[in-house]
Amino acid sequence: MKKVNIAIISYGRIGRVHMKNLVASPYYNVVMVCDIVKPDDFETEYPEISFVSEYAEVLANPDVDAVLIGTPTSLHPMQIKAAAEAGKHVFCEKPLGSSMKEILKAYEAVRKSGVIMQTGFNRRFDDDFLAIKSRISEIGEPHILKITSRDPGMPPIEYVEKSGGLFMDMTIHDFDMARYMFGEVKSIFVQAAALVEPAITTYGDVDTAIIILTFENGAIGVIDNSRQAVYGYDQRIEVFGSKGMLQNDNHLESNTVLSSKAGVFSEKPQHFFLERYLKSYDTELTYFAKSILDESPVVCTMEDGIMAVKIAQAAQKSYQIGSTVVLSNS
Amino acid sequence: MKKVNIAIISYGRIGRVHMKNLVASPYYNVVMVCDIVKPDDFETEYPEISFVSEYAEVLANPDVDAVLIGTPTSLHPMQIKAAAEAGKHVFCEKPLGSSMKEILKAYEAVRKSGVIMQTGFNRRFDDDFLAIKSRISEIGEPHILKITSRDPGMPPIEYVEKSGGLFMDMTIHDFDMARYMFGEVKSIFVQAAALVEPAITTYGDVDTAIIILTFENGAIGVIDNSRQAVYGYDQRIEVFGSKGMLQNDNHLESNTVLSSKAGVFSEKPQHFFLERYLKSYDTELTYFAKSILDESPVVCTMEDGIMAVKIAQAAQKSYQIGSTVVLSNS
Amino acid sequence: MKKVNIAIISYGRIGRVHMKNLVASPYYNVVMVCDIVKPDDFETEYPEISFVSEYAEVLANPDVDAVLIGTPTSLHPMQIKAAAEAGKHVFCEKPLGSSMKEILKAYEAVRKSGVIMQTGFNRRFDDDFLAIKSRISEIGEPHILKITSRDPGMPPIEYVEKSGGLFMDMTIHDFDMARYMFGEVKSIFVQAAALVEPAITTYGDVDTAIIILTFENGAIGVIDNSRQAVYGYDQRIEVFGSKGMLQNDNHLESNTVLSSKAGVFSEKPQHFFLERYLKSYDTELTYFAKSILDESPVVCTMEDGIMAVKIAQAAQKSYQIGSTVVLSNS
Amino acid sequence: MKKVNIAIISYGRIGRVHMKNLVASPYYNVVMVCDIVKPDDFETEYPEISFVSEYAEVLANPDVDAVLIGTPTSLHPMQIKAAAEAGKHVFCEKPLGSSMKEILKAYEAVRKSGVIMQTGFNRRFDDDFLAIKSRISEIGEPHILKITSRDPGMPPIEYVEKSGGLFMDMTIHDFDMARYMFGEVKSIFVQAAALVEPAITTYGDVDTAIIILTFENGAIGVIDNSRQAVYGYDQRIEVFGSKGMLQNDNHLESNTVLSSKAGVFSEKPQHFFLERYLKSYDTELTYFAKSILDESPVVCTMEDGIMAVKIAQAAQKSYQIGSTVVLSNS
Repeated sequence: MKKVNIAIISYGRIGRVHMKNLVASPYYNVVMVCDIVKPDDFETEYPEISFVSEYAEVLANPDVDAVLIGTPTSLHPMQIKAAAEAGKHVFCEKPLGSSMKEILKAYEAVRKSGVIMQTGFNRRFDDDFLAIKSRISEIGEPHILKITSRDPGMPPIEYVEKSGGLFMDMTIHDFDMARYMFGEVKSIFVQAAALVEPAITTYGDVDTAIIILTFENGAIGVIDNSRQAVYGYDQRIEVFGSKGMLQNDNHLESNTVLSSKAGVFSEKPQHFFLERYLKSYDTELTYFAKSILDESPVVCTMEDGIMAVKIAQAAQKSYQIGSTVVLSNS
Repeated sequence: MKKVNIAIISYGRIGRVHMKNLVASPYYNVVMVCDIVKPDDFETEYPEISFVSEYAEVLANPDVDAVLIGTPTSLHPMQIKAAAEAGKHVFCEKPLGSSMKEILKAYEAVRKSGVIMQTGFNRRFDDDFLAIKSRISEIGEPHILKITSRDPGMPPIEYVEKSGGLFMDMTIHDFDMARYMFGEVKSIFVQAAALVEPAITTYGDVDTAIIILTFENGAIGVIDNSRQAVYGYDQRIEVFGSKGMLQNDNHLESNTVLSSKAGVFSEKPQHFFLERYLKSYDTELTYFAKSILDESPVVCTMEDGIMAVKIAQAAQKSYQIGSTVVLSNS
Repeated sequence: MKKVNIAIISYGRIGRVHMKNLVASPYYNVVMVCDIVKPDDFETEYPEISFVSEYAEVLANPDVDAVLIGTPTSLHPMQIKAAAEAGKHVFCEKPLGSSMKEILKAYEAVRKSGVIMQTGFNRRFDDDFLAIKSRISEIGEPHILKITSRDPGMPPIEYVEKSGGLFMDMTIHDFDMARYMFGEVKSIFVQAAALVEPAITTYGDVDTAIIILTFENGAIGVIDNSRQAVYGYDQRIEVFGSKGMLQNDNHLESNTVLSSKAGVFSEKPQHFFLERYLKSYDTELTYFAKSILDESPVVCTMEDGIMAVKIAQAAQKSYQIGSTVVLSNS
Repeated sequence: MKKVNIAIISYGRIGRVHMKNLVASPYYNVVMVCDIVKPDDFETEYPEISFVSEYAEVLANPDVDAVLIGTPTSLHPMQIKAAAEAGKHVFCEKPLGSSMKEILKAYEAVRKSGVIMQTGFNRRFDDDFLAIKSRISEIGEPHILKITSRDPGMPPIEYVEKSGGLFMDMTIHDFDMARYMFGEVKSIFVQAAALVEPAITTYGDVDTAIIILTFENGAIGVIDNSRQAVYGYDQRIEVFGSKGMLQNDNHLESNTVLSSKAGVFSEKPQHFFLERYLKSYDTELTYFAKSILDESPVVCTMEDGIMAVKIAQAAQKSYQIGSTVVLSNS
């Protein structure tokens, strides 16, 4: 079987998750890893994989078919652009960037070069969300979309500072999911506050939000977010329409239930995204390989990545001005 | 509307439950209550209802159409017989008696007199059990019946002493339910022990049992009992066949669920039979009235009461001899 | 026991529900019923209850302690005022009126007279909502409130025409519940549309809505409404805070679950409010009687009724102007 | 890291499942595969793995540390014995054999040689069963064990013919689970019938069974089996004791729930053992490797395999004689 020769750009938390999936995948050869500092045990663990510190070296390597970009957000547009110009296929983590102008330059380069580009909204590849997506006609005409998306705990303040804010860092996944389910967003209204950690208002950030979306198809949607659900990662979705409702509930740590004098105790939801969405990180890469190898259509395109950033930016604006922001979907 | 003039025989715990339902019912006039000692507040609470201490007075009263017997088990057969001979319709609590010979004499009297007789297996009238009963064809050919029936706590030792034993006192409800769902029982095998309160072995009793039934229709069934489920009254049923399975789960004290750092907490099952089967005690009396007033067929007949006693006696025998007992259903 | 002598004003659907509860209640004597047309069977069914067509007759009757008003909304303020001036205690169905000016006149009369006044937000008396209310401290600081409230089907167009609109007719219950749980509302933003029955836009009405509330305590809330959930009456609530989450799910028609080749089938939610909230209609009247007889505080006051109307009016305004409306809680 | 060099004996359905796990495992090198016929694509797929048709060749290979035996049951004892005598560690699928005499000979050889031997009861390694096992003290003194274990459909009649019968082929997993949870079994009583496929009585087999176990610790247990649950693989367990109950429910195909006019539809349980217990097949091999490499104790020993066969044989006997069979645990 033909395989995709891939290079991983940035070897942090998410880079290592992808590494594990890529080396076990029948669709990939990991050729290179690029990061500033080489971990001590890298050579022992992956003797056949070369480690470089310069992105240019990756792009110059004719053996590299594709790059997987997991660097800080601000570097994404430039790195996508350079990869496209070097004729490398690109998988890039969300969000695609912090400046729309730069993102659009990268997009132009991708379009010109004709390389395959996939945005890393892994939840699209989760079995439960796929089940709803594939059965969505069962609800008839879509009327209401509800997403509950709450993290298990406040990230460190240094993370918040560089995160781009709740909407760009966390809700962006929900924005993409909303589009995936109900199509294009027409307008957005945000009500948000710093209820968990008031100190983050220093950075203009919030930790609790309720967001109303309207869709081109006429439906209405609501997302509720919190940075801190003490019972674990809360990831629910509900789509409602003229013929009924489809819902996904949380995945619990195990199915075991204890009935005792004190009551009936179930397990908590799986702790966080690495547990809950573990499999989807593998599946999204399989799809990426198939788009490259078999030319099957990309499930989560660069356009999808751009639209999610646009909505996140509109959310930020709505929060600041306190009223509805209409999106221009042109 | 015509009403049934009824007398309540024995004014203990269950007698009072019936009293409350009867006075609120549009189908009944409570004419008399019969017990040894008249409660102090009886006259204030029910000024129009006469209170007597002699059963004979009840039977002699031409205004009494029917009696509701809630006395200790050993008195049931004699009281049923006397009522039938006096031409009174009879509702009698389970079990119908402790001596089959006496029960059959009472049965003979009922048959001769032609009065309506209903046995008090209230669970037949519970909405959830009715739902399964009415939908039982959806499972196709019946293969397996499973009943879990566990009380919330060990009764006092004085109660155990006079209870007639686990099978006659508690499992008898499950035996009736088994027959209600799958028809006549062919054989029974019991494995039982005193695991909650070993002291009850003094009375030849047990508190934990697993019982296998075979049915005339070829299906197999299992009942599991415990006198002490610390999490509350555990009442579940499952019927399984060639086309699927129907199940009823417990009723919880409320639907409220708490998700916290410690896990996900649901309420316990409703505490005991007076909570769980509250409505069925009312419904069974409505059916009894309708059988008297409209001649609609009796849902739980004297024959049903007799069969349940037979099975309970066979259970006791199986427990004692340690092997299967075949029932004679003639 | 002392009882409240009560008169029922308007003998329509909800009037008959109350009648059934009142005649069975140990706390009430129903003295009179007032409506334009006397039903044919009324005298047979309730021979001891007088039926009049003039409200003045009710108020003139010195035997009447209290009135229960279930007339069309526009009549409420005038009837409350007249009752208060006649020294009668008042139970009035929601909403309290359509004109705030008239409602406040009625309120003034109630205050002056010192009669007991209860507004008919029955959901406050539902066991499940009571359970959350009584346990609300378990979630710590309140952050997010979520109410899903969907009717099983579109009412007839003639009903819609006179209903006062979705917010005043249907959401008003959710507004009251929001206040009951999280306290005073600070601002409201509405996104709504006529997705089920576009024809109702003729009356300026909508059938689908998502509504964001902010609370004086800093929390945020969201209500989602639809006039048509084809699977039945959808009534869920979720309160979320610094220490966890409390949720109530729907009540199903029965607990029975079928597992078959085609999947696992549970029952639908109970059909509509008369099934789901049956018991609460009885409980709210018990509380009303206790407030009159024992001077226990009113759970749902006239002020509560006024606040709910204010929020519903603000919702209507937000829908019309497309932006947030701030409430004046003075 | 040191790895275990393993050979797979028999390359049928289960052999291929193990192959996939072994090649992806960091703990193993698959050195050889042994079967009668070499699949056409074997060499393309696994160019580095040698394929032989003679078991002797495997045992003669000094590079082979361990064998994984997945051949028909009757060959197990001989193959275990030969492997042990050749100094190879042994992993053998259940059941260990059909003749206790032969099994004990193999056991003797294993004991003498000192090789590591693990029996393939994979369910012990399933997360949900592990959760109950590890929390079992939470139920206090053990009173009742309940296992529901139903296959999704009748196997072909040729399979039945050679299967060794329901108890040896299917229930043996449940017997092992019963011992894993509650310890040694004292006696067994079986009620069984051919309700799904009466034709199998030709082979003395049954397809529906309810089995009562008593345990050395005084507790009682019940297993219910069916060869055909049309709604899917039904795998539930419940342990009940003086302090409460622990339960595991089925794993559904997805969490998605549809609410429609027709009711509320959940997914079916995962189809069969390869779906439901997928991960446990991998985990059991990790444990086997660790026992070899790190000398950590074997979780499922040869003694465990022998006990399960003894119970299955006692079950068969109880079915034939119609009464309780006492086990000799010496």
